[in-house]
Amino acid sequence: MATVQARVLKGFRDYLPTADIPRQQVLRTITEVFESFGFAPLTTPALEYAEVLLGKYGDEGDKLLYRFEDNGGRDIALRYDLTVPLARVVAQHRDLEVPFRRYQVAPVWRAEKPGKGRFREFLQCDVDVVGEPSIRADAECLTVGLQVMRALGVPGVVARVNNRKILDGLLDGLGVDGTERRHSVLRIVDKLPKIGREGVSRELGEAVGLDAAAQERLFAFLELDASQGLEGVEAVVGSTEQGRLGVEELSELLSLMGDAGLGEQVEVDLSIARGLDYYTGTIYETFVLGHESYGSVMSGGRYDTLLGMFLKNSTPAVGISVGVDRLLSLLTEIGLVEGRSGAADVFAVLFDATGYGALQRAAQKLREVGVKVEVSLKPTKLGKQLRYAERKGYRWVLIAGSEELERDELGLKDLTTGEQRTATLDEIPSLVR
Amino acid sequence: MATVQARVLKGFRDYLPTADIPRQQVLRTITEVFESFGFAPLTTPALEYAEVLLGKYGDEGDKLLYRFEDNGGRDIALRYDLTVPLARVVAQHRDLEVPFRRYQVAPVWRAEKPGKGRFREFLQCDVDVVGEPSIRADAECLTVGLQVMRALGVPGVVARVNNRKILDGLLDGLGVDGTERRHSVLRIVDKLPKIGREGVSRELGEAVGLDAAAQERLFAFLELDASQGLEGVEAVVGSTEQGRLGVEELSELLSLMGDAGLGEQVEVDLSIARGLDYYTGTIYETFVLGHESYGSVMSGGRYDTLLGMFLKNSTPAVGISVGVDRLLSLLTEIGLVEGRSGAADVFAVLFDATGYGALQRAAQKLREVGVKVEVSLKPTKLGKQLRYAERKGYRWVLIAGSEELERDELGLKDLTTGEQRTATLDEIPSLVR
Repeated sequence: MATVQARVLKGFRDYLPTADIPRQQVLRTITEVFESFGFAPLTTPALEYAEVLLGKYGDEGDKLLYRFEDNGGRDIALRYDLTVPLARVVAQHRDLEVPFRRYQVAPVWRAEKPGKGRFREFLQCDVDVVGEPSIRADAECLTVGLQVMRALGVPGVVARVNNRKILDGLLDGLGVDGTERRHSVLRIVDKLPKIGREGVSRELGEAVGLDAAAQERLFAFLELDASQGLEGVEAVVGSTEQGRLGVEELSELLSLMGDAGLGEQVEVDLSIARGLDYYTGTIYETFVLGHESYGSVMSGGRYDTLLGMFLKNSTPAVGISVGVDRLLSLLTEIGLVEGRSGAADVFAVLFDATGYGALQRAAQKLREVGVKVEVSLKPTKLGKQLRYAERKGYRWVLIAGSEELERDELGLKDLTTGEQRTATLDEIPSLVR
Repeated sequence: MATVQARVLKGFRDYLPTADIPRQQVLRTITEVFESFGFAPLTTPALEYAEVLLGKYGDEGDKLLYRFEDNGGRDIALRYDLTVPLARVVAQHRDLEVPFRRYQVAPVWRAEKPGKGRFREFLQCDVDVVGEPSIRADAECLTVGLQVMRALGVPGVVARVNNRKILDGLLDGLGVDGTERRHSVLRIVDKLPKIGREGVSRELGEAVGLDAAAQERLFAFLELDASQGLEGVEAVVGSTEQGRLGVEELSELLSLMGDAGLGEQVEVDLSIARGLDYYTGTIYETFVLGHESYGSVMSGGRYDTLLGMFLKNSTPAVGISVGVDRLLSLLTEIGLVEGRSGAADVFAVLFDATGYGALQRAAQKLREVGVKVEVSLKPTKLGKQLRYAERKGYRWVLIAGSEELERDELGLKDLTTGEQRTATLDEIPSLVR
C-alpha cells in the first residue's frame, strides 16, 4: 500500500500525553465537583438528525454545523453544543425525575475559521438543571461552577451576572422590536470587550439602525455601576414587566450567592449579553482577574423556552459550561499544571529479561496499594533507563534486580535530588507520596 | 419555530443517568488500571482525513466509514477505531519516547446495519505499546487487560491467545497464497463460533476455493489441544520460518503470563484469527466462563507493519481493547451494577425556600470531606421529597431545617430500613459510608 501523509485536519488537535495528562486530571476534578452536587452523567451521540440542531444557534450557527448525508440518505450533523441534545433528551424522555440535574463532558464540532484559540473540535463541560423555575437552580449552577474553580486552584475568579429580562426591558424602552432585531442587538453588545464601544456603535447603526440618542441611552445603561444595588437598573427598566422581573431575579440570585458564602465572587455586569439566542433569564460569564484576555472561562444562563422547540409545554432550564481549553491554557500559564509524559508515580528499571516476571509481580503489589508503576520493557544499561525516566518527567525510580526483590531490599532513587536509598516494598508507598 | 420531533438516529444511543452512572464508574476503574501501569492518555480528533483511515480495515471496513466532504471540500471521515489514529500520531511525532504506552477511551463510528448489540457509535478503551518488539509488551497488554477484569470484579475470565505467524505457517503449508486470499481465510475462520464448522467450510470453498483435503488439515489444526504444550503445533507449522517464530513467540507469552501469576487465565486457542488485516503476531480474545455468548470482552494483538503505512521504517506495536458495552451488559446481568439515577450519596431535604442557603452551606462542608450531596431545590412536603429521593435510588436522606442546622442536630434517614437518627455534621461522613 502507498504511504499516506500522517497529518491532522486544520482546526483539530491531538493531545499528546504531556498535554493530556494534566487535561485528564482537570477533567476528573471537574466531574468530581459536578457529582458532589448530585449532577448525574448523561451521554448523547455525536451525531444527531440535522433538524434537531438547526435553528437553535441563529443563522450563523447553522452555517457552522458539520452537516452531511449518511449512507442511508439521512440529513445528519455533528453536535454543535451539549445544550440542544439535552433538550432533545428531556423532550424524548418525559419520565425523567425533575429537577433533572445532569452533567456532560464531551467534544462539540463547529466549522469555524480556525485561529488562535479557536478550534473546530473542542470539549464542553456542562451542568444543567432542567425542570426547576426557581432562581435556586440558577444559584446552584453558578455555585457548582465556582466550586470547580476552587477545586482547580484558580485564583481571582469573578462571575459577572446579568439577566436577559433586564436587557429585554431595556430594548422595550429603546423601542427595539422584532425577535431577530433584538437578538442582533444582544449579539453586537456581546462583542463589547472585543471591538470596543466604537465598534459596537458602528455595528448597531449599520445592522440595526439604532440612532445616536438610543445608543447613548444604551451605553449609559450598560455602564451603570450596580455594585451598590439594583436601584439604578430598576429606575431604567422597572416600568416594563420584563424589566421588573429581571431585576427581581437578579436580586434573588445575588442574595442566594451571598447565602452560599460566594457573594464576593459575584458581580453584576449589565453589558453581559451572551451570543446565543435561547437565553431567557440569568446569564453568567466568569473571568480570572489579571487574565481577562482569556475571555470567559465559564458561561451559561437560563433558557426557559428552548425545550419548547421539541415540546408542546416548555420546561424551564438553566446551565453553565466550563471552558476547559481556556482554563488549561491559564493554569499552564500560572504554573499550576506540570507537563510530563510519564503517567505513573514510579519507573521500575529492568536489569535483565528473565527478571521481568518478578519485577512485574512486585509492581503489581504497589499498584494494589495505589502506587502507579511503569515497568521498563527494555533491559538496557541502567543509565539509559534512567535517562528515559528523566525525559518522561519521573521523580521516583525503583532499582532492583531479582536478588534485591527476593531479599526485599529495593533501591529507590529520587531523580530530583539524585539520592538513592534502600527500602522494602511495604515502605515504598509512603516514601513516594 | 416549528416543533421538531425529538429522536435519536438508528444505531445511536443516549445513556440516561441510570445507565450512565455505572458506565462512568466502570470507565473510571478501567482508566485507573491503565494508568497504574504507566499508560498515558492520548486524545485524537473524531475526524480524520479519509485517506488516513482508508485501506486499513479491508474493503468491508472502508464501506463502513462515516465519510463526507467538509465545507472546505476536504474528504474526511469519523474515526473507525483508535488504532489507526494512534499509528498516525506516532508517525507524525517521531520524538515520542519509546516504548510509547498510551491509552485512549473514546467513541468510534461505523455505519453498520444496526442490530442487537451492534451500534453505529460505540466506545473503545484501548491500551497499546508502540516501539517495543519484545513479547514483554504483548504480555504487559494482556496483564493490564486481565487486571481491568479483576478490578471490575468479573469472574471466570479466560484469555485465549494465538499468533498470526502460526496461522501464516499453516497457510503456507496449505498452499494458500496472496495477501487478500490469506486474509479471507482468516476472516472466515474468525467466524467459527458464529457460523460453525459447516458454515466456515462452505465459505472456504466458495470464497477461497480451498479443497476438502486442505480443509480437513485446517480443521484438524484449529482443534489441536495445546493445553499440554505446543509440540503438536510445532509439528504442523515448525517447518516454515513464520510458523517456527510464531510458536516461539506464543510460548514466550505463555511463560511471561505464568511469571506474572496469571497463567491460569490464559489458554491457547488455535482457532482465534481476528478479523482485522493488520495483525502480525500475538492475537488475543477474552471470554467470561458461562457468558461466552457475549463474545470476546477484550481483544487485540500485535500489528508490527501498520505504522509502515505512514512511515518508511515501520515500528512494532501491540495493543488490547476492552469491550465496555459487552462488559456492562454482562456486569448488569450478573448483578454487579446497580441502576440508580441519583448521583450523590445523600439527598438533603429543603423545608422552606429561605433555608436554602444554610442547607447548601452545610452540604458544602460534607462535599469537602468527600460526601456527595444533592440539595433539594423544591421546598415541597416532606413525603414528596422523600419519594423523589427514593425514585432516584438514594439510601440516605438528610432531614434538617434551619434550626436543626444551627443546633447541629441533623436527621439522617436510611430509606432502606426507614430508620432515622440524629447526628452532627461531623458524624455523617462515617455514617453514610
